[in-house]
Amino acid sequence: MLRQIPGGVTAPRGYRASGVRCGLKSSGNLDLALVVSDAPASVAGVFTTNQVQAAPVLLSREVAARGAARAVIFNAGNANCCAPNDMAHARRMQTDTAAALGLSAEEVLVCSTGVIGHELPVEKITVALPEAVRQLRVEGAADAARAIMTTDTRPKEIAVELTLPEGPVRVGGMCKGSGMIAPNMATMLACLTTDAALEPPALREMLATVAQHTFNCVTVDGDTSTNDTLLLFANGQAGPAATAFANDRPDGRENRRALYEAVEHVCTFLAREIARDGEGATRLVEVTVTGAADAAAADAVARTIANSPLVKTAIFGQDPNWGRILAAAGRAGVTLDPGQVTVRIGEVTVFRHGLAVPFAPEAAQAAFAAPEVAITVDLGAGSASQRIWTCDFTYDYVRINAEYHT
Amino acid sequence: MLRQIPGGVTAPRGYRASGVRCGLKSSGNLDLALVVSDAPASVAGVFTTNQVQAAPVLLSREVAARGAARAVIFNAGNANCCAPNDMAHARRMQTDTAAALGLSAEEVLVCSTGVIGHELPVEKITVALPEAVRQLRVEGAADAARAIMTTDTRPKEIAVELTLPEGPVRVGGMCKGSGMIAPNMATMLACLTTDAALEPPALREMLATVAQHTFNCVTVDGDTSTNDTLLLFANGQAGPAATAFANDRPDGRENRRALYEAVEHVCTFLAREIARDGEGATRLVEVTVTGAADAAAADAVARTIANSPLVKTAIFGQDPNWGRILAAAGRAGVTLDPGQVTVRIGEVTVFRHGLAVPFAPEAAQAAFAAPEVAITVDLGAGSASQRIWTCDFTYDYVRINAEYHT
Repeated sequence: MLRQIPGGVTAPRGYRASGVRCGLKSSGNLDLALVVSDAPASVAGVFTTNQVQAAPVLLSREVAARGAARAVIFNAGNANCCAPNDMAHARRMQTDTAAALGLSAEEVLVCSTGVIGHELPVEKITVALPEAVRQLRVEGAADAARAIMTTDTRPKEIAVELTLPEGPVRVGGMCKGSGMIAPNMATMLACLTTDAALEPPALREMLATVAQHTFNCVTVDGDTSTNDTLLLFANGQAGPAATAFANDRPDGRENRRALYEAVEHVCTFLAREIARDGEGATRLVEVTVTGAADAAAADAVARTIANSPLVKTAIFGQDPNWGRILAAAGRAGVTLDPGQVTVRIGEVTVFRHGLAVPFAPEAAQAAFAAPEVAITVDLGAGSASQRIWTCDFTYDYVRINAEYHT
Repeated sequence: MLRQIPGGVTAPRGYRASGVRCGLKSSGNLDLALVVSDAPASVAGVFTTNQVQAAPVLLSREVAARGAARAVIFNAGNANCCAPNDMAHARRMQTDTAAALGLSAEEVLVCSTGVIGHELPVEKITVALPEAVRQLRVEGAADAARAIMTTDTRPKEIAVELTLPEGPVRVGGMCKGSGMIAPNMATMLACLTTDAALEPPALREMLATVAQHTFNCVTVDGDTSTNDTLLLFANGQAGPAATAFANDRPDGRENRRALYEAVEHVCTFLAREIARDGEGATRLVEVTVTGAADAAAADAVARTIANSPLVKTAIFGQDPNWGRILAAAGRAGVTLDPGQVTVRIGEVTVFRHGLAVPFAPEAAQAAFAAPEVAITVDLGAGSASQRIWTCDFTYDYVRINAEYHT
């Protein structure tokens, strides 16, 4: 049984977190976050596929590859990417954090988010680190979730509890991401925690699969960041239930499946929150393509619709201009027979088998005006499907990105 | 010698054009255009690669495949695509136009542009056709160029004259296109004319090559229309110079090369006009990628940068935020070593071999504030290059597309 609980990344047992000010954000808001596991933990990571990768990504990849860690330090306001001394500064964040926590450097991951190409004033982080350590507490998740925000309008966190016969196991998560959000790591930064015990290979496999079905199904603007990082810690502090996922237990496979679903629940929530909070967004949009010949075709059509500026501005304008949906589907690089295609906006069928279906404009407009907009395209060519989350495209997207001065 | 001359599509000898009102545009502006060759002409066409193709595209493809035509009828305000009776209405436009001109239907091409999915009120065109025929004249190019506009803010036309020993040969062109403009037919509608004599196969080859280097290098929003059509008529009415391009002439190849350059000049001008007049655009942006391993890599990187909403809003905001250019290059699906990459904004080098280059912000801002913005990315991986034209991304793009109600 899965139920939602409060507490974010520190809801699972044996985690503490904090969020403090180090002065990287000119607003003076929280901009340095720390998440720590009290006990040694397995860790898995999924990182940006962008060919340009920030120094903290390169560094955290190494830690995640070894599979064991105790802490992650986050800063917002500077991506520490393609900037002078970027790798030296990322290493300094790692070693300073390790020293402040009494850990070795290899146990610390580093994440940065913000503007690219400006040298990170790393001393600000060094100076603020003792306070970040002092503030570490079980109730610190909300501060941490707030400290990693950039153009996000609200923090994004969740936790769930899975009840096993031996007792509860928990999964928590937080993320940030609002622009430069696209296929293949749809968030700039996300951190998940669980008090289950899992070996790194099992953890890695679970995280990679979940990412594929959740964060990688979000696109705000088609731009993939240089800093995207998704981390999952598993510290085994759940008590007797922690070991319910071992390979040598008869119910191990079933329990891993339940844990997978808990992690997927957390990631689905966070991924949808990213789309809903897309820069300037007024609506969450779910594009579902069904009846595709294969998974790649479903994915290509769904992503092309979800990234179409014409579709996204039509949604903002509450204009059921389905011709744009169809035109986007037609340019997705997938063989497509309009005579087999059906398009629905919410529950309203607007196009069926090559022809417009007369509909009450108010009904379709209402579907486009809802806080969550569903677009469904059936290609009539097979049985594969895909679902992509995005948002509408608004004046505020332009304002945020035209005024986001370096 | 090539020189620009007035006259648009009717600058070459033996063409007449008109633009009249038929009532498809609610604004009451000109919305029906006719271009006619007085003599039988060769014709070549390049059409949308969108899998969803409008009825007039399907019909005009047939005419272009036969290679001979005398006239083309255009309407703006309705795309006649995926709408009830679309093919019947396209055929009626063709046969009514042929009847009004005393031609056979197979000699008439049909082009439509506007909203998708609404039945074309074809009677309006039938009623207005006699007036369109009556208005046909050598000075009618400007009216025709105006009648094919949709969200364009200005008509787009040009003509050039190529001087050969036997006399002048002319090439004229007009186009429309402002939104739903993307790779593979970057204009919804373009019509070119020449008074040279060329057989359909040579004309086709010339047009396909020119399109690849001009219209297909424009992207406004990554959306490829269902109605994109580029036509080139060659009626051989240039007098003695008309036959200077024949295969059996010793200078035929050289003259064809000169004619190719004239057509390319016309198409380059029109393609840049489309980018400059992109929906809501305030600037023409030329993205040049050099030093790529191969042409496909150059193209992928240039198009990804040119389509990035983050890059395009930064240009609108006159913010030399080159990190977005680099991040877009990095997600283009091309292997890329940031340590070899150089990025320039106008004449200002902002990034070289993996590191930010200190620059005077005013200089880069001035380059981003100019009416034509040049972004150059050298990948340092080879010798292939590509140049793509686009525009910035503004509040007005959102306004135009959110308010363009069906």
